[in-house]
Amino acid sequence: MEEKHILSILVDNEPGVLSRIAGLFSGRGFNIESLCVAETTDPGVSRITLVTVGEPPIIEQIEKQLNKLVNVIKVHELTGKKFVQRELALIKIIAKPEHRAEILRIVDIFRCKVVDIGPEHYTVEVTGDEGKMEAILNIFKPIGIKEIARTGIIALFRDPN
Amino acid sequence: MEEKHILSILVDNEPGVLSRIAGLFSGRGFNIESLCVAETTDPGVSRITLVTVGEPPIIEQIEKQLNKLVNVIKVHELTGKKFVQRELALIKIIAKPEHRAEILRIVDIFRCKVVDIGPEHYTVEVTGDEGKMEAILNIFKPIGIKEIARTGIIALFRDPN
Repeated sequence: MEEKHILSILVDNEPGVLSRIAGLFSGRGFNIESLCVAETTDPGVSRITLVTVGEPPIIEQIEKQLNKLVNVIKVHELTGKKFVQRELALIKIIAKPEHRAEILRIVDIFRCKVVDIGPEHYTVEVTGDEGKMEAILNIFKPIGIKEIARTGIIALFRDPN
Repeated sequence: MEEKHILSILVDNEPGVLSRIAGLFSGRGFNIESLCVAETTDPGVSRITLVTVGEPPIIEQIEKQLNKLVNVIKVHELTGKKFVQRELALIKIIAKPEHRAEILRIVDIFRCKVVDIGPEHYTVEVTGDEGKMEAILNIFKPIGIKEIARTGIIALFRDPN
């Protein structure tokens, strides 16, 4: 059965690594739902957090092949384990005068932050897990979303140590 | 002169697009400093936000070639324009008893959030622009960072409408 998988991959911070990793997925017809890559505290090492949907045996195959790539240091699958996940989004909402109070109420309830205001829009910053992000988007959609930028999920193990 | 560039790229949400885009950069020896990709409100369209460092004429060349790719809908360079930028990080900090009060003070000052606690660590969620992220990492480093996951920057224009 197709399932959602979150992979956390430590890689050398070098040109070409991301393209090769993304290519491993697309070569099998797997779509990458979201992906983040940025430096860690070691500027030579980056962490990729990647969300994909597929059958577990094929994900296992991809994991094995990821581990064989020269610039891949470590691969972890987070699915099924205890982890903290968060996502960030900037949402530009159409803010007609009659909707402004309602937008600010939603911002307040979901602990978002208004980070920019124009004559016809509010830009809101939201942080949360997948469920919260979905709930907020569903609430803002009927008011009118002009533009959105989402980071995709990042995650760390809740390790006991 | 080498400069930092932020590109915002709308693409069809299809396998292979990310690999081809990342390949355009690595093919020219350009490293991607950070990259986020996730769906927009239209599930058929994803937005890639990408940070790279390089000489302006070569970035312009890459932009032209991005525009020629079949699954690329729109490319914007944000550098030099007015925009809102944000990044999210999860930081697992080594929390020895003698450091805990200091960690919580920093969390408070920077308006971070503790999202997980273990016997020997705190995991902290931070949102901010590049400058804030750098400041926080510099402050937590001497206390001890065990692990970090960063999203890389997302950005939206501060357009006047």
